[in-house]
Amino acid sequence: MRTLKKNSALLSLNTATLGHRSPLEKVVDAAARKGFGSIVPWRRDLEGRSVEMLARHIRDAGLNVNALCRSTYFPQPTPELRKDALEDNKRALETAAILGADCYVLVVGSLTGGSKDLAGARQQVKDGVSELLDTAEKLGVPLALEPLHPMTAGDRSCLNTLGQALNWCDELDPDNRGCLGVAVDVYHLWWDEGLERDIARAGMNNRILGYHVSDWLVPTLDLVTDRGMMGDGVIDLPGIRRWVEQAGYQGSVEVEIFSSENWWQRDEEQVLETCIDRITRLC
Amino acid sequence: MRTLKKNSALLSLNTATLGHRSPLEKVVDAAARKGFGSIVPWRRDLEGRSVEMLARHIRDAGLNVNALCRSTYFPQPTPELRKDALEDNKRALETAAILGADCYVLVVGSLTGGSKDLAGARQQVKDGVSELLDTAEKLGVPLALEPLHPMTAGDRSCLNTLGQALNWCDELDPDNRGCLGVAVDVYHLWWDEGLERDIARAGMNNRILGYHVSDWLVPTLDLVTDRGMMGDGVIDLPGIRRWVEQAGYQGSVEVEIFSSENWWQRDEEQVLETCIDRITRLC
Repeated sequence: MRTLKKNSALLSLNTATLGHRSPLEKVVDAAARKGFGSIVPWRRDLEGRSVEMLARHIRDAGLNVNALCRSTYFPQPTPELRKDALEDNKRALETAAILGADCYVLVVGSLTGGSKDLAGARQQVKDGVSELLDTAEKLGVPLALEPLHPMTAGDRSCLNTLGQALNWCDELDPDNRGCLGVAVDVYHLWWDEGLERDIARAGMNNRILGYHVSDWLVPTLDLVTDRGMMGDGVIDLPGIRRWVEQAGYQGSVEVEIFSSENWWQRDEEQVLETCIDRITRLC
Repeated sequence: MRTLKKNSALLSLNTATLGHRSPLEKVVDAAARKGFGSIVPWRRDLEGRSVEMLARHIRDAGLNVNALCRSTYFPQPTPELRKDALEDNKRALETAAILGADCYVLVVGSLTGGSKDLAGARQQVKDGVSELLDTAEKLGVPLALEPLHPMTAGDRSCLNTLGQALNWCDELDPDNRGCLGVAVDVYHLWWDEGLERDIARAGMNNRILGYHVSDWLVPTLDLVTDRGMMGDGVIDLPGIRRWVEQAGYQGSVEVEIFSSENWWQRDEEQVLETCIDRITRLC
């Protein structure tokens, strides 16, 4: 396995880890100072700002942009809203291109408007992703399907396992044009008995576009915002990274922690130091 | 699909639905009066009581016993504790036989004692179940492996999908001796894109020993005790029951709702009436 060291592009910070409390420039500067070499901003970090100026700020700080988070949900209660969501995602791809992001993360959405038709929601996602592929290819920003934990299936994501994501890749992009892959987030996938097999499968087709770490806390008190810092939970982090690297993945290790009651309440500098310490020792 | 009517053995009450507030006899009498034809008690309902007398009370009330809930977790931090758990499960099988229960539900457990070795926990479960099979066969009480939602993988269950449960059945009971199957609980499995396929597979081998209903609430506020009453959430209940019946399942529809802040706070008679109404109209 690769050694994860400070001041390397392999160490990536997803800005959600700090709870979106500070302007992006401040987060970028602090991340670079503490030893991160890459960053993953959210679209909310860019709202009302000049993306070109932010892109320059990030470059000047010496950071890569691993990804842009994240898609507007594809399933929507009406055809008009679905079309709006698609246009929104196309604009976000342009933003990602300006940032020089390595990929655009797709959190796909799920049931809306009282529907119980999960198969229908999945079809809406596949239709939407299919329509985005040309734009992604033209802009050179691949789409990273991110399967989310099954506990999000009611509202946030009807895409819930890596195997499912790879099936969708094969279906939507049978020729593997290089513009569709997956984001492997240990928090969402660690429980899956088929994970080692599916990671190997993803590697064979060069589909792994990102690798995200955090930890699963026991007990977990909230379905969205109670993720743990690496080492504080039960996930075998080195074990999963080994699978990912054996599958040929050479990208970064991205810290992404949603933690409204703990880490989002703490001093940002302390959070960043803890992240760096835990990634380099425990991931 | 079969019609679900009051006063039929197809309508089954898992006693956890009432929050274990009243003695089992009272629950049995109320369930029978309201129109349930079957019941699934928990071992905690039997503690310190004469199982023979309770069995007679249930029979006299005209109820079937669909299952006994549930196993002591198989993974344990030491070999001694694993052996204790196994003995405990053998005694529970004897209890299930006295009750005339159609099966013994296995909620299998997961990581213990700070371990992060999920594959090891799974092996401990398979070893334990394997050792229980002869007792189950001798007593005529089949074991029902219940896959639990992946959000329980850290502590309650390292068995998380129906496909995984069926793989374990094939591995542990390749000759299909009739003493190992699965419990299909919509709450745990509804999100799985492979569910229809896996239910059909379970049916082909006659592995479906139970079918449990409740609903997935959006939002869900607790990982264990925030299940919804049928109809209050997003699960397509008739859709899944159709798959189960097409797979040849002829057993009951069991209501099992963990709801510490809602249904467990309500009057028991009202809860039972609501269950009957919802099963017969919406499941």
